[in-house]
Amino acid sequence: MSKITSQSQDFSQWYLDIVKVAELADYSKVKGCMVIKPYGYAIWENIQRELDSRIKAADVKNVYFPLLIPESFLQREKEHVEGFMPECAVVTHGGGKKLTENLVIRPTSETIMYDTFSDWIKSYRDLPLKINQWANIVRWEMRTRPFLRTTEFLWQEGHTAHKDKAGADEEAHRALKMYEDFDRDFLALPVLTGRKSDKEKFAGALYTLSTEALAKDGKAIQAGTSHNLGMTFAESFNINYQDENGALQKVWQTSWGVSTRLIGTLIVVHGDEKGLRLPPKVAPTQVVIVPIYKTDGEERETVLKAARQIASDLKRFRVLIDERDTYTPGFKFTEWEVKGVPLRIEIGPRDLAKNSCILARRDTSEKTSLEISELFTAVPKLLDQIQENMYEQALKFREEMTSEIGTYEDFKKILEEKGGFLVTGWCGKETCEQKIQEETKATIRVIKEENTKCKCVYCGEKSSHKVYFARAY
Amino acid sequence: MSKITSQSQDFSQWYLDIVKVAELADYSKVKGCMVIKPYGYAIWENIQRELDSRIKAADVKNVYFPLLIPESFLQREKEHVEGFMPECAVVTHGGGKKLTENLVIRPTSETIMYDTFSDWIKSYRDLPLKINQWANIVRWEMRTRPFLRTTEFLWQEGHTAHKDKAGADEEAHRALKMYEDFDRDFLALPVLTGRKSDKEKFAGALYTLSTEALAKDGKAIQAGTSHNLGMTFAESFNINYQDENGALQKVWQTSWGVSTRLIGTLIVVHGDEKGLRLPPKVAPTQVVIVPIYKTDGEERETVLKAARQIASDLKRFRVLIDERDTYTPGFKFTEWEVKGVPLRIEIGPRDLAKNSCILARRDTSEKTSLEISELFTAVPKLLDQIQENMYEQALKFREEMTSEIGTYEDFKKILEEKGGFLVTGWCGKETCEQKIQEETKATIRVIKEENTKCKCVYCGEKSSHKVYFARAY
Repeated sequence: MSKITSQSQDFSQWYLDIVKVAELADYSKVKGCMVIKPYGYAIWENIQRELDSRIKAADVKNVYFPLLIPESFLQREKEHVEGFMPECAVVTHGGGKKLTENLVIRPTSETIMYDTFSDWIKSYRDLPLKINQWANIVRWEMRTRPFLRTTEFLWQEGHTAHKDKAGADEEAHRALKMYEDFDRDFLALPVLTGRKSDKEKFAGALYTLSTEALAKDGKAIQAGTSHNLGMTFAESFNINYQDENGALQKVWQTSWGVSTRLIGTLIVVHGDEKGLRLPPKVAPTQVVIVPIYKTDGEERETVLKAARQIASDLKRFRVLIDERDTYTPGFKFTEWEVKGVPLRIEIGPRDLAKNSCILARRDTSEKTSLEISELFTAVPKLLDQIQENMYEQALKFREEMTSEIGTYEDFKKILEEKGGFLVTGWCGKETCEQKIQEETKATIRVIKEENTKCKCVYCGEKSSHKVYFARAY
Repeated sequence: MSKITSQSQDFSQWYLDIVKVAELADYSKVKGCMVIKPYGYAIWENIQRELDSRIKAADVKNVYFPLLIPESFLQREKEHVEGFMPECAVVTHGGGKKLTENLVIRPTSETIMYDTFSDWIKSYRDLPLKINQWANIVRWEMRTRPFLRTTEFLWQEGHTAHKDKAGADEEAHRALKMYEDFDRDFLALPVLTGRKSDKEKFAGALYTLSTEALAKDGKAIQAGTSHNLGMTFAESFNINYQDENGALQKVWQTSWGVSTRLIGTLIVVHGDEKGLRLPPKVAPTQVVIVPIYKTDGEERETVLKAARQIASDLKRFRVLIDERDTYTPGFKFTEWEVKGVPLRIEIGPRDLAKNSCILARRDTSEKTSLEISELFTAVPKLLDQIQENMYEQALKFREEMTSEIGTYEDFKKILEEKGGFLVTGWCGKETCEQKIQEETKATIRVIKEENTKCKCVYCGEKSSHKVYFARAY
C-alpha cells in the first residue's frame, strides 16, 4: 500500500493521498473531472439515501430537468449570468451541425426550472411548489481538487416557490436546519450556520444561508447553502400567480443544495494520520472482520466459520469479512484503517479458544477483548459511541480553533499562527471585507450576530455585525 | 381534466395525451429534452431502487465517470465513433475560452470508462471487474417522443471486463436474464429475449442481446440491451492483464443498460383507453382512498377519520388519501384512473354505516363491496393478483399478435393488417434484411433460433435462422 503524507507536514498532499489510497476517486483524462470509485460512490449513496428521505419528509418532490440550458435563459437574470456564464461549458454543435443557439451545461438549474415554473404556477392553490433534483453539474474551475472542487460534481438542488417573503424565509431556514441536522446526526459534522455577506451570496439571491465546517488544517469549508431568491427570478421569468382576491402576484423563491463536496468535508474534518475516519452512519462498511489463521489446514476453516457466524449475528449492520488469503492481517488492519471503517473485529485461534475476539475502534484506536456472545449488544452501542465521539471531537476542535479577536494585528497573527474561525466586528462595508481578503485571504464565512455593539476589526468604526472570518476551501 | 385521444383512433396522440394528463413529463424549451415531473420521476425511482438492488446482488459496484469525453477517445474505436459521433452534442468552449480539444457529452460511456480500465486492470486477480453507473446521456435525436426517444435520457450502464470469452458470454447473458426477470416480476412486462442481427447490434460490439416488448399498437419496443464487446475496446484502449502464467492477455468485455424508456414501455404495453395502468410493484401510489362526503358538516370528519384508519392499517403499502375538497369524487376517480393507480378504495357515509367500502381494480375495472375489516388481508392479495393479471394480459396479447409467416406476401399483409411479431425464416444476409426494412419498415427484433431449417421469407433460400420481425419504436 502506498504511504500517506503526514497531515502536519503537508495537509494538501495528505488529502490527495487519502483520496487515492482509500480508493475514493481517480483523476480522469478530462481536466478537473474525477472518477468516483466504488468506495467513494458508496459513501455518496449513503448520503443520498438519508438526505433524500429527509427531503421527502418535508413534502418536496423529486423531478428531473434538462442538462442543457439555452444561453438566453441565463442572460435573463443579470447577476446570475455574470456569476455563472464565465464558468460554463458551452455546447455549440449537436448532431453534426452548428446550433442556432448555444446551450450551456447546467452550472445550476434556476433558469431552466423557473422557465417551466411560469407554466406550472397559475394560482395560489399551486403554492408552495417544492421540488428537488439529484443531478450532475459542470462549472469550469481553474484549480480543482477531488470532491472539494471539481469541474463536474454531483449534487441535489431544491427549488421552491411561495406566496410571500415569509414563506420563502421559512423554507430557506428549514433547508438550512435540515442540512445542519443531517450534518450533525449522520455525518458527525458540527457546522456553523448563518447568513453570508452580500459579497459572498449566490448570484441572484436576496440572501444566502450557509453551513460551514472546520477542516483539521484550520480552514473553513462551505458544506451546503440555502438561498432566499426573493422575487428576482420571478421577475425575469414571469412567475405570477393569482392570489385569493384575484390579484396577480409574483412568487418568492428559494433554492438549496449540497454536493459531493460533503465527501471532501468528511475527509478534512475527520481524517487523521492513519487515513480516513468515517462516522458509522455513513460508512459503507461499518464493521470489518479480519480473521487470523494459517492459510493451510483446518485452522482457516474453523476461524472463517466463526467469522461468518459473527457476521450473521451482526447482519443488521454493514459487515464485511476480509477473507483474502493473499494479504497478512497486519496489511488488512492498515488498509481498513486508511478506509476509515469505524470498527474492526479481529478473531484468531487463540481468541476462539477463549470464545472471545478483539474489538478495535477506529476513532480512538482503543482495542478491547470481548466474549463473542457479547458482540450482539456491544457492537450497536459502540457504533453509537463512535458516531457521537467523532462529533464531539470535531466540535471540541472547532471550539479550540475559534478565537475572539479585537484588533487587526491580532487578527493577522492568529490567522497566521493558528487559523480557524476568527470572531470579530465588521462594519458591514464591502470595502473592509475586500481589503481583509486581499491582505489575509480570510473571508466572512457567516454572520454571527446582526444586532450587537462592536467595532469593525479593519476600519475601527462602530459596527452592529459580529462575523466569523476564516480562510476557506 | 383534458381529454385523452382514443387508442384506436390515434395511438401516437393517445401516448402524448397520457404523458401530459397523467403528469409524467413536460416538454422543455430545449429541443428533444423533457422535464420529468414528480409522478413520472417517482416511477423512475421505483425502477431504480429495485433494479439497483438486483445489480448489487450480482456483485456489481456503482461508480461515477465524467459526463464529458474527449473527442479523440471516441475516435479510437472505428465502429463506435461512426455509430455515435453523428449523434453527439459537442462542447467547444469552457470557462470563456475555446478548448484545445472538443469534448462530447457522453452518448454512452465505453470510451471514457475503458481508458481508466487500462489503469485499473493489471492482473488476472483484478478480474472480473464489474461496475455500473446511473447517469444522464445525450444523443442528438431528430424525432423525439417523451420517454421513448429523447435527446437527453436517464439510464444505468453496466460495464464489465473478463479473462475470456466464456466470462463475457456468461455476464452478457446474466444481465439479459436480470432484465427479463425484472421486466416480468416488477414491471409485469413479458419480453422476448435473444440476439440482434449484426445490422442492429451496438456499434463496436461482438453481439448484442435485447429484451423486446410489444406495444398495444402492435409495434415492438426495445426495452434493454446487453452487449458482448469482445476484445474490440481492449484493443483500442490497451486493456491488458497478466494471466496466471505471466503472459499478457487482452480482456473480454460487456456492457448493458436500460433507461427511462422503460417508462414509455410501461405506457405503451399496459395503457388503455382510460389512461395509464401501473403494475402495483412500480406504482408510486398503490392504493388511493377517495372519501365521499358533503364538504360541510360532520360527515366530512367522520369519513376522513375512517379513511385515515384504513390508510394506517395499510401503511406497508404506498397509500394516498385524496382529501381535496375542491374536486368531486367522480373527478378524482377519473384522475387516478388516468394515473394508473392499481387499486381504489371508495368510502362514504352509506358504506360506513355498513362498515364496508368499495374496492375498484384498475386492471379489470371490477368493483366489489367489502367489509373494512377485510381490507387488511384482501388488499395484499388483490395487489398480487393485479400484478399477475397485468402480466398475463400483456402475454396473451403478445401471443395473439405473434404470427408464423411463410411467404413475403403474407408477411406484408399481416404486418399491414395486424402488426405484432412475425416469426419467419431469414437467410442471414444483410441485403435481405435491408430490403425488407425498406419495403415494409419492419426490422429483425431478435433471432429466435439459429440452427433450424427454414426458408428466407425474402429470397427463398434455405436458411438456418428463425427470427422475429416487427415494426418498432
